[in-house]
Amino acid sequence: MPLLDAVIEPIVRAALLEDVGRGADVSAALLPQNAPFKGLIRARKAGTVAGLQPARIAFRIVDQDLQFTPLADDGARVESGAPLARIEGRAASVVTAERTALNFLTLLSGCATLTARYVTAVAGTKARIAATRKTLPGLRALQKEAVQLGGGWPHRFGLDDAILVKDNHIAAAGSVSAALAQAQAVAGHMRVIEVEVDSLAQLEEALDHKPQIVLLDNFSLTDLQAAVTLTAGRALLEASGGVTLETVRAIAETGVDVISVGALTHSAPALDIGLDVA
Amino acid sequence: MPLLDAVIEPIVRAALLEDVGRGADVSAALLPQNAPFKGLIRARKAGTVAGLQPARIAFRIVDQDLQFTPLADDGARVESGAPLARIEGRAASVVTAERTALNFLTLLSGCATLTARYVTAVAGTKARIAATRKTLPGLRALQKEAVQLGGGWPHRFGLDDAILVKDNHIAAAGSVSAALAQAQAVAGHMRVIEVEVDSLAQLEEALDHKPQIVLLDNFSLTDLQAAVTLTAGRALLEASGGVTLETVRAIAETGVDVISVGALTHSAPALDIGLDVA
Amino acid sequence: MPLLDAVIEPIVRAALLEDVGRGADVSAALLPQNAPFKGLIRARKAGTVAGLQPARIAFRIVDQDLQFTPLADDGARVESGAPLARIEGRAASVVTAERTALNFLTLLSGCATLTARYVTAVAGTKARIAATRKTLPGLRALQKEAVQLGGGWPHRFGLDDAILVKDNHIAAAGSVSAALAQAQAVAGHMRVIEVEVDSLAQLEEALDHKPQIVLLDNFSLTDLQAAVTLTAGRALLEASGGVTLETVRAIAETGVDVISVGALTHSAPALDIGLDVA
Amino acid sequence: MPLLDAVIEPIVRAALLEDVGRGADVSAALLPQNAPFKGLIRARKAGTVAGLQPARIAFRIVDQDLQFTPLADDGARVESGAPLARIEGRAASVVTAERTALNFLTLLSGCATLTARYVTAVAGTKARIAATRKTLPGLRALQKEAVQLGGGWPHRFGLDDAILVKDNHIAAAGSVSAALAQAQAVAGHMRVIEVEVDSLAQLEEALDHKPQIVLLDNFSLTDLQAAVTLTAGRALLEASGGVTLETVRAIAETGVDVISVGALTHSAPALDIGLDVA
Amino acid sequence: MPLLDAVIEPIVRAALLEDVGRGADVSAALLPQNAPFKGLIRARKAGTVAGLQPARIAFRIVDQDLQFTPLADDGARVESGAPLARIEGRAASVVTAERTALNFLTLLSGCATLTARYVTAVAGTKARIAATRKTLPGLRALQKEAVQLGGGWPHRFGLDDAILVKDNHIAAAGSVSAALAQAQAVAGHMRVIEVEVDSLAQLEEALDHKPQIVLLDNFSLTDLQAAVTLTAGRALLEASGGVTLETVRAIAETGVDVISVGALTHSAPALDIGLDVA
Amino acid sequence: MPLLDAVIEPIVRAALLEDVGRGADVSAALLPQNAPFKGLIRARKAGTVAGLQPARIAFRIVDQDLQFTPLADDGARVESGAPLARIEGRAASVVTAERTALNFLTLLSGCATLTARYVTAVAGTKARIAATRKTLPGLRALQKEAVQLGGGWPHRFGLDDAILVKDNHIAAAGSVSAALAQAQAVAGHMRVIEVEVDSLAQLEEALDHKPQIVLLDNFSLTDLQAAVTLTAGRALLEASGGVTLETVRAIAETGVDVISVGALTHSAPALDIGLDVA
Repeated sequence: MPLLDAVIEPIVRAALLEDVGRGADVSAALLPQNAPFKGLIRARKAGTVAGLQPARIAFRIVDQDLQFTPLADDGARVESGAPLARIEGRAASVVTAERTALNFLTLLSGCATLTARYVTAVAGTKARIAATRKTLPGLRALQKEAVQLGGGWPHRFGLDDAILVKDNHIAAAGSVSAALAQAQAVAGHMRVIEVEVDSLAQLEEALDHKPQIVLLDNFSLTDLQAAVTLTAGRALLEASGGVTLETVRAIAETGVDVISVGALTHSAPALDIGLDVA
Repeated sequence: MPLLDAVIEPIVRAALLEDVGRGADVSAALLPQNAPFKGLIRARKAGTVAGLQPARIAFRIVDQDLQFTPLADDGARVESGAPLARIEGRAASVVTAERTALNFLTLLSGCATLTARYVTAVAGTKARIAATRKTLPGLRALQKEAVQLGGGWPHRFGLDDAILVKDNHIAAAGSVSAALAQAQAVAGHMRVIEVEVDSLAQLEEALDHKPQIVLLDNFSLTDLQAAVTLTAGRALLEASGGVTLETVRAIAETGVDVISVGALTHSAPALDIGLDVA
Repeated sequence: MPLLDAVIEPIVRAALLEDVGRGADVSAALLPQNAPFKGLIRARKAGTVAGLQPARIAFRIVDQDLQFTPLADDGARVESGAPLARIEGRAASVVTAERTALNFLTLLSGCATLTARYVTAVAGTKARIAATRKTLPGLRALQKEAVQLGGGWPHRFGLDDAILVKDNHIAAAGSVSAALAQAQAVAGHMRVIEVEVDSLAQLEEALDHKPQIVLLDNFSLTDLQAAVTLTAGRALLEASGGVTLETVRAIAETGVDVISVGALTHSAPALDIGLDVA
Repeated sequence: MPLLDAVIEPIVRAALLEDVGRGADVSAALLPQNAPFKGLIRARKAGTVAGLQPARIAFRIVDQDLQFTPLADDGARVESGAPLARIEGRAASVVTAERTALNFLTLLSGCATLTARYVTAVAGTKARIAATRKTLPGLRALQKEAVQLGGGWPHRFGLDDAILVKDNHIAAAGSVSAALAQAQAVAGHMRVIEVEVDSLAQLEEALDHKPQIVLLDNFSLTDLQAAVTLTAGRALLEASGGVTLETVRAIAETGVDVISVGALTHSAPALDIGLDVA
Repeated sequence: MPLLDAVIEPIVRAALLEDVGRGADVSAALLPQNAPFKGLIRARKAGTVAGLQPARIAFRIVDQDLQFTPLADDGARVESGAPLARIEGRAASVVTAERTALNFLTLLSGCATLTARYVTAVAGTKARIAATRKTLPGLRALQKEAVQLGGGWPHRFGLDDAILVKDNHIAAAGSVSAALAQAQAVAGHMRVIEVEVDSLAQLEEALDHKPQIVLLDNFSLTDLQAAVTLTAGRALLEASGGVTLETVRAIAETGVDVISVGALTHSAPALDIGLDVA
Repeated sequence: MPLLDAVIEPIVRAALLEDVGRGADVSAALLPQNAPFKGLIRARKAGTVAGLQPARIAFRIVDQDLQFTPLADDGARVESGAPLARIEGRAASVVTAERTALNFLTLLSGCATLTARYVTAVAGTKARIAATRKTLPGLRALQKEAVQLGGGWPHRFGLDDAILVKDNHIAAAGSVSAALAQAQAVAGHMRVIEVEVDSLAQLEEALDHKPQIVLLDNFSLTDLQAAVTLTAGRALLEASGGVTLETVRAIAETGVDVISVGALTHSAPALDIGLDVA
């Protein structure tokens, strides 16, 4: 389910304009007018590709006559050196769009690559890796897509498309039961309700109200296992809190359904990708 | 030189709207109407603070009556647990703005913190740490500011405010000399010219044309040292390429003036910062 | 769960600017500079109130010093003549904002009023009245909110926040089963899946895959009843297609859970509301 | 005089984005990549067509390769079942744009259809049917155009392009004469002046100042006739206030020049129009 | 009839952002944090004031706490040295907004001043000086307002609010009569129709159709006088084409009603205005 | 270094929309549907061409099928009557875009033409003519480009891309030395520093700190000459203040490097340019 170009274009345009500033790439004036360019965008490290869509749009905004030919699919795992796309056209246009295009590619491939490492780490278990709302400002749709390209799940997109009943809501309502009842009253029939619990006792209380999902916040491995046993399939279980590549496998093996990882979108290092003459 | 609120506000507003989506924080309906909230934003790891300005703006956009009181300065180094700001006002407003505000704080404090680590690593040398154009799409002004708060230099902001003569310009012009002459012809009197060289021979040719700055691209330590000696103060020297926290000190000790590090803005892990009732 | 002002303001601003055009309310020049105004916004027919938020914002955009005091709550049922809000301030400002504010109020109160009539018509059954995506361009969030104020449910907001598997998806996938399996593979854990069926046979096939909701498209009353019996609570059932105030009660009495009505948002007549000196 | 695409496009884009939300039509993922689609947009009730321009733009924004071929003209009266346009292209693109395109068509054809009914009702008299400023927020230009396509007149577009001297202006100025004199002083030579009167006495006073148009507000049929006689062609006369399809003919037969009807733009029911595979 | 702040603000904001660029006024960092400033905006030449509204808005966007006190009215004729406004507040804010505010003031006061010179030149005749559509891109509303402040008329605002039947329309329609008939058919009752003629014969033909205004394009003084005699008050007459301060009086004395002058908005020199510490 | 279309297009679009207003060029309805047009844009006075880029974009926004063929280069000096571009396509589209396109051309060619006159006036000296920040709101990038096309230098673009240390900064810092030291501390390595002085004594103090440029504000010719002698090439010298076409040659002959002229962008009269059938 690729994003609509019409949604992505304003984001790419804003990024391009912050690079171009008052309107002219001064150093492009050093290139002969209409000098041609042929080049390849290549991964310089192994990883999972994401961001070809905004990269394509960046080149198109600068110059509709540039030819951008993808040589890999978004979501593909590639080796270091793999070509991701071919660019042909006016050299001055290419150098103007280059940095913006690469900044999207390196960021989003970084997210996809880190996600894929988590997904690999839990292979063979039923656990799915999911993103959170801890995303880079202005880039959530693209990052959630990158997580999916890496094999993860996007989780809710924001404050409006699903309900997560958290500790402060429970405190305000007086109990897990009261909070869940209220959530069910306002949710309508098209929003999923998830409730966050911090103990097995709260989990038990929550399950009585048939939430679709329960978030187990910072549970120990032992408690996660107990939660899985207690729940017995009555709701999806999501583990969350301080998950790392070192700890994720053990968490997955407790039998939880979903493991959410903030680092996928707030701390994924960029994947090194560059453009070379070719 | 703090950024103008008028420049930052559209970025914060866009981030907030991608979290709020079609207009309502559904779970805020679980909080009693007008319930009050008092809380503290705290660092959960030691680091350098950045992002209080967009955080303040996020709370203000949601609710003009929220009181946001900074308890630390942007640029301050703080310990784990240090309070960064106090928030008071309607609980429903606070939870609506919270994630957006924190996403700015954790990202930008992450940049500032990584920059400060590089700056510390070169302490006692004359080398300055600088950012590059490898920034997160849409967030360049804020990230460049965060680098400055961490003790670094912003470098040029984009394609229009300074000229960096690169390998492809030199190839197109035929020689370093020709490219520099052309750059000086188009630069006007208010733009700095920097030229990228990849050998001591190119450096020598460049120095004849009195560029303000020379970028030494992927030079070995030995060549960096030779470049410093050869240049003898006739231009600023910038080292660039694959710089890490492990290698930066040795590079600085060669006597270069500036060391630019892409990772400051494309791969800085988020600094853990949270909002607690208090 | 009121909408965030920051979401609504651009919509109100655009509406105001299409009324003001090139920037001046020429006829406001006929009023003495700074002449004061006191008036009441009143319902001129009985109905359910919606739209006080955009009305308030319209007056505020024109003149921050205007005092807009709501005298009724959004969602309240009022009689003809009931005061909805008091306006005080510069007369020239009031007449400039008046038409824009009233256009929101009459439209949205019209939606809420029609919804309330449907809700009343099914009172005592378990059926909930729901809106569709057949909304007025640019006004969906406000209209969905108005439907909720009238006692209805908003249904999904768009193409991204829930999945509705429709006839063309089923045709493309080859069967209800195949389409539902695919939907479950792409939905992630935070999106509700609804499937549209046009026969009891399709319903039966669908139920095997445990969708949260089944849309019964243009079913006869007999078939609706059969569907309720067949389903026996295994999924929510939504009736849809040509529902009118005349037919809705009988549909509700079949025992379906949700009845969706396009007319709530595409054909609700405006509620007559005006501003009078007072 | 069709609207400029550049004026309409932002409105269509905003409508599309409120449907697409965070960027992806999730259910479009259920359709085979690049599956083709051929279909017809058809009227499901008889009426007058309007909205083909925004419909065409909606499809184009989603996918420039979709072929949209109009089969009827905007303004044409069509029977139930009449084809309005043919769509060919990627199925996934068609379903993404479909609802937005139809929402414009059903709304605007609804306005044109209701207008045409009023125009037919006064056929043979000299009266012209005109719209008011009681339009749907953000949709005024399109609705005024739809009224023209239905055979009506748009009336003034907003507060800046003509002057309507109303009761509060007259009250503020002290008399009809004083208000009209002031209006003529500020109007310039390119704005029409209309004055609203609520009695024959006020009409008489107004005519002394040679306004181009006089609005007869809520006059009885007898008074309308008296006004026509009194005026004797010295100004255009516009009847306004609570006009319905039942009363409009009698009003027209009094000899007034213009009859303005708010319902054309605030309460026209949608015309049923759908897209079918073909 | 001052412009609505909501209309002007985006124009001022865009101007400010093109001055501020990537967000920081670097040199403002040279001023002590929170240093206070008191100053006066003064005319440095005699002229007619316009632009205080956008100037006020520019200071407010930068810093809501700046106090901007107008000391003259828009439209006032002032001597060299006259104070126009007082500014108090943070010095760093003042210097950031200063250039943008002054650029509006000098431009718009320049327009108003030139207009006033033309108005003075025709004093005692009945001729009114009017602007044209030859305005600076993006600044039309403000410039039309400045012309009014200088004593002129704004003329039509654009292509939609009035009809000017020009030579190419007449050529396309076949005759003045045919073109005017068509114009009257599409104008509706709220748009003024003006027709451009280039000979007395065309004028005679035009007058038969009762246009509200006739534009006499590049008529000699003799022909203007003949046109006035021929028309005998049956329409307003507008003289246009190459009007200068030297020729305008003689044109006015022919008895035409309106003289339009492109130079008011495309070639008015700026009025010198500055900000001084005081 | 032409501007990027993506930067210019929003400015052209805004200008077009302020002309088109609510969306329709009413008088275009007087032209036969699809009537063809062939015409030439011609200079009606001799001058230097600028603005062909925004003119081309204006025609393209209105109608992608219009053919706009430049017949002169931006920056070319042309005689009265010289053709600048050929337009072919739908007549209705041409007349809708015409005024907007011409308004850019006449404005920007006016700037370029005035600049070229100053450049010619100093021919044979080493002085360069430069623009200032006294530009028309919203049009700075285009005007700075026009100045370059006329042979001038753009100077700094705004408050962020270079530092100009002015009298108030010096007053705040206590001395030229203190202000310059502070500027050097905040500038980073990619911003030029210029310092404004108003006496030879200040110049001498400034030179000790090696600024790249010194602005000599309102110096007499004698003092300018003394400044050149004193400086002896240690910094670029810029003369500024009340420069006119009459005085600029003498200033240039003092030996200064740069002469900045506000009038280039705030008071350049439009160059007369029109579109004729051909």
